[in-house]
Amino acid sequence: MDADSLQPSFAEPPGRAFEVVLAWVDAQILSGDLAVGDQLPAERELARLLNVSRAAVREAVRTLQAQGVVRSSVGAGAAGGTTINALPSDALTRLLRLHVALANFPHEDVIEVRVALERLSVRLAAQNATPEQLDVSQKAIDVMADPDIEREAFNDADTAFHVALAAAAGNRLAMDTTAAIRESMRLPILDRFRHVHAWDDIVEDLRRDHEAIQAAVTRGDAEEAERLVETHIRSAWHALSYDVSAGGWLGGSER
Amino acid sequence: MDADSLQPSFAEPPGRAFEVVLAWVDAQILSGDLAVGDQLPAERELARLLNVSRAAVREAVRTLQAQGVVRSSVGAGAAGGTTINALPSDALTRLLRLHVALANFPHEDVIEVRVALERLSVRLAAQNATPEQLDVSQKAIDVMADPDIEREAFNDADTAFHVALAAAAGNRLAMDTTAAIRESMRLPILDRFRHVHAWDDIVEDLRRDHEAIQAAVTRGDAEEAERLVETHIRSAWHALSYDVSAGGWLGGSER
Repeated sequence: MDADSLQPSFAEPPGRAFEVVLAWVDAQILSGDLAVGDQLPAERELARLLNVSRAAVREAVRTLQAQGVVRSSVGAGAAGGTTINALPSDALTRLLRLHVALANFPHEDVIEVRVALERLSVRLAAQNATPEQLDVSQKAIDVMADPDIEREAFNDADTAFHVALAAAAGNRLAMDTTAAIRESMRLPILDRFRHVHAWDDIVEDLRRDHEAIQAAVTRGDAEEAERLVETHIRSAWHALSYDVSAGGWLGGSER
Repeated sequence: MDADSLQPSFAEPPGRAFEVVLAWVDAQILSGDLAVGDQLPAERELARLLNVSRAAVREAVRTLQAQGVVRSSVGAGAAGGTTINALPSDALTRLLRLHVALANFPHEDVIEVRVALERLSVRLAAQNATPEQLDVSQKAIDVMADPDIEREAFNDADTAFHVALAAAAGNRLAMDTTAAIRESMRLPILDRFRHVHAWDDIVEDLRRDHEAIQAAVTRGDAEEAERLVETHIRSAWHALSYDVSAGGWLGGSER
């Protein structure tokens, strides 16, 4: 391994032998020396190259498998027959979702990132969405229109609406990150849905917001869609948080 | 496990028994029923609850360990003594970086997401950066000012500059995602750096861009910093890509 193939962030001495192997595989992937479908060197070779035990190589390979970074061909032993995998989008969204749920980021920080990503998503959706994709977000709106809908079902349809617009952006990285952030906010938002006092008022505003966003995206007005989605995310969160924390509803002028 | 505790995306029948366990743990985390520091149920109990073998539970726990989602206390056996971990930022940035490197997203898609996140980062940095944080991005500028700098060293300092501004945003989720996206672009950008013909012209533009961004952030001009960083990312990528693909330099008017 030459020094050039190591990213600066991998240059610190790792704590354990198998981490040496992980850092090496990461660096090879990021430098382009290992691409999807390429095989890892055989266990014995990798152990010698990196000056670690074969057990350390095996542990690293198991970890990489669990992370979805490599897969082992059936019948092939140890590191031999281990090929680099194309990480499925699901793996990333899942980790991002868990990360946001566990990392205890301040909700306000998540909102800022969400606004940035959803502005991008609706702008691209306004430019690229197909009628079929717009049907998906419209269906979520129709579900939310039910006057008897439970709060949890409303939240699920609300999530589905935002994820559908992200999917219509025609940019898979934008979609993966937007969907992960929205889904990671499912619980905090549901919490507020459950405890909010002025549910009927708030839910009416949410319905109006969603319809206006859908209309702007449908007529291809990217600028208006961006403005609407930012206002929607910020004002909904503000209304829900204020109402829950103060135990009383301020009225329309505060939104 | 009640149906409500499962997110819609986890509701499909998983392919293998250990995936049932993974889906259950994910759902508990996302519903807030398992938080950082909480213990997983004991192996035997979890196997009975989910109607899977104890071996499946063990495999799931190993996978969750590899993903950093749980850690096992030393001396405790199997799933007993397994606690939910706060995923370190590094774990997310690493996965996101690998994901972008392996997923073969079109570079243009990555650029769009990068622009959205870096606009957010410099806006927040213009509002929140401390003098110490601005020193870090300034140091990267100083490194890039060396007229004899190698292209790879320039690229590393360029990455460091953007990551430093993201770190100055005072929003860790914004920083984690911005840094991961920029680092995932290190190789494609380095590739272009290496093959570009009009290196001297381009590098001068990059230096000027970085200094203007740094100045806008330092004087707290969020709007100008956002505009500059977007123009910088788009024009640098365009100049590098055009020059490399066409094998000739169009001149300043095309940028």
